[in-house]
Amino acid sequence: MKIGVIGGGQLGRMLALAGTPLGMHFAFLDPAPDACAAALGEHLQADYGDLQHLRQLADEVDLVTFEFESVPAETVAFLSQFVPVYPGADALRIARDRWFEKSMFRELDIPTPAFADIQSQADLDHAVASIGLPAVLKTRTLGYDGKGQKVLRNLSDVLSAFAELGSVPCLLEGFVPFTGEVSLIAVRGRDGATCFYPLVHNNHDSGILRLSIASSDHPLQKLAEDYAARVLDKLDYVGVLAFEFFEVDGGLKANEIAPRVHNSGHWTIEGAECSQFENHLRAIAGLPLGATRKVGESAMLNFIGSVPEVSKVIAIEDCHLHHYGKAFKVGRKVGHATLRCATRDVLDRQIMALETLIDQQA
Amino acid sequence: MKIGVIGGGQLGRMLALAGTPLGMHFAFLDPAPDACAAALGEHLQADYGDLQHLRQLADEVDLVTFEFESVPAETVAFLSQFVPVYPGADALRIARDRWFEKSMFRELDIPTPAFADIQSQADLDHAVASIGLPAVLKTRTLGYDGKGQKVLRNLSDVLSAFAELGSVPCLLEGFVPFTGEVSLIAVRGRDGATCFYPLVHNNHDSGILRLSIASSDHPLQKLAEDYAARVLDKLDYVGVLAFEFFEVDGGLKANEIAPRVHNSGHWTIEGAECSQFENHLRAIAGLPLGATRKVGESAMLNFIGSVPEVSKVIAIEDCHLHHYGKAFKVGRKVGHATLRCATRDVLDRQIMALETLIDQQA
Repeated sequence: MKIGVIGGGQLGRMLALAGTPLGMHFAFLDPAPDACAAALGEHLQADYGDLQHLRQLADEVDLVTFEFESVPAETVAFLSQFVPVYPGADALRIARDRWFEKSMFRELDIPTPAFADIQSQADLDHAVASIGLPAVLKTRTLGYDGKGQKVLRNLSDVLSAFAELGSVPCLLEGFVPFTGEVSLIAVRGRDGATCFYPLVHNNHDSGILRLSIASSDHPLQKLAEDYAARVLDKLDYVGVLAFEFFEVDGGLKANEIAPRVHNSGHWTIEGAECSQFENHLRAIAGLPLGATRKVGESAMLNFIGSVPEVSKVIAIEDCHLHHYGKAFKVGRKVGHATLRCATRDVLDRQIMALETLIDQQA
Repeated sequence: MKIGVIGGGQLGRMLALAGTPLGMHFAFLDPAPDACAAALGEHLQADYGDLQHLRQLADEVDLVTFEFESVPAETVAFLSQFVPVYPGADALRIARDRWFEKSMFRELDIPTPAFADIQSQADLDHAVASIGLPAVLKTRTLGYDGKGQKVLRNLSDVLSAFAELGSVPCLLEGFVPFTGEVSLIAVRGRDGATCFYPLVHNNHDSGILRLSIASSDHPLQKLAEDYAARVLDKLDYVGVLAFEFFEVDGGLKANEIAPRVHNSGHWTIEGAECSQFENHLRAIAGLPLGATRKVGESAMLNFIGSVPEVSKVIAIEDCHLHHYGKAFKVGRKVGHATLRCATRDVLDRQIMALETLIDQQA
């Protein structure tokens, strides 16, 4: 089976590492000449709207999937004429746009911070009066890793905020005094079967994920699964879906979904019986889903900007390096490491050792 | 770092799957147009004695390693002029030839079956009189998976045995009434550091490995490590070395070594903290070695001739498929699966489930 992937970054790369042992082949469509997934499959170097190359991809592969959600709707629609596309156009349309996404949460009775659609500075002034401050203004589309958003703490922040984000459609979100951020990696097969990984505790810094720790018997696991199942079924979803929540007052408020394998699920490569990457491929290929239970205690730390010296990273016991083979650049995710240990005590010690290494690097 | 691999079969493929996350790149020299490792790196399609392509490989990579031990000595000598080669020429020279190998065991006081060098039918007649029957006649070089050997049970088997194996230099080995076959996967770094995986119980059929089960606290573990350490140090070895033993009278007799990653170590991909493939790469790259301890209970079953239907293989819980992407052919290793379970009871059940699937296929 040959899988076409729109995007050829580290997520595509890890999909190929998971799928090759299943006998799968890969083709990546990515405009970047140095797309790091290209080491593991065919690389169609073309823009995401290049119909000729999209058609070539569709002709070559059995099905198409995505590495990122901001794929143009036209691309999805075009491909869908020729080849199965998972997740489907509907899921991508909603996940791509914060307004559609939040509206879906509301429709499905999934708690979410107060929000308002912002098409102008007047809309923003009006929404701030209703939602209050602090609040976060985010572009409706194309935001990631803290890009395309601005925290509004007082009225002076509000004044030119809409213009600062480019005068594009935005969403204003009420600030939530959360006690933690967790994510749920969910999978749904073509036959509607679902499974869920243990909730992950996430630590962000400047909007970029730094540390994920897989939980054990999290008291909100079932609630999170219930919310995610509503979304999966609503969208007739196929593949991995990541669901980010705020922990608030002992409950959950939905932050956002990502219709793809997700950074907060990277620990599953070593830390779960079947990884999110293999399970995404199993799902879209119509194969039975794999077990999501943990193998030991796991944490994942991102390498942002650069990867510390390889010999030092792997000298930390139980440390599994994932070097993406990308050029180092400030603020760019260029690798991660997963720590898998028998006990949480040991895990905490190893996290400290790796954080020290990362700090020395910075 | 770019690694050159002589041979582009499944071992090269699994090396690349392990090394890519370490940021390594791969080039494979293999005459086969459909070398299955080529999906994961550059493929130099050339004979192993093609000096022009060997030189090209040496110029492109940081070091060279091998997927199989029957590499021509001239190839190793040629490459060594231009680029570091691990394991070194000496290890390959000895491991390639059963006479050198057995003589080294004797020199290092490692018990091994009685053996004799056979250069003619007269040598064979003479050796049979001294060693007795049953015995096994094996070509000194180029044998694998039961090829290049003949079991001699009575004198009529002896009559034309030397000619039947091609009248090439052979080794006669006394038959050993073994109670089991075990192998030890050993690793030695450039700095002389060593580590060892738990002993593996192996079941062969028609000379081909079918099933490997990783042991727990095997009573002969330390003895096997002692023997292997003698060989590693003697050869100033760098990389993974597989050591096959017969279990005889509560002790071990050395059968053979393989100077490379080995089929009986495939379970380590999921079943050990750091796999034999990653550890081989760490060793030859001069990086610190990874932990060899088990993660749960593991068994590996080979797929010979064909891979059963993927959906059925991965429907078995805890089953990890490794499809090599090779054309199916009778007697050919085309894939394997590793079962990793929490307990030995569950493991035994899953082995039976997978064996049933393999039998249905046959």
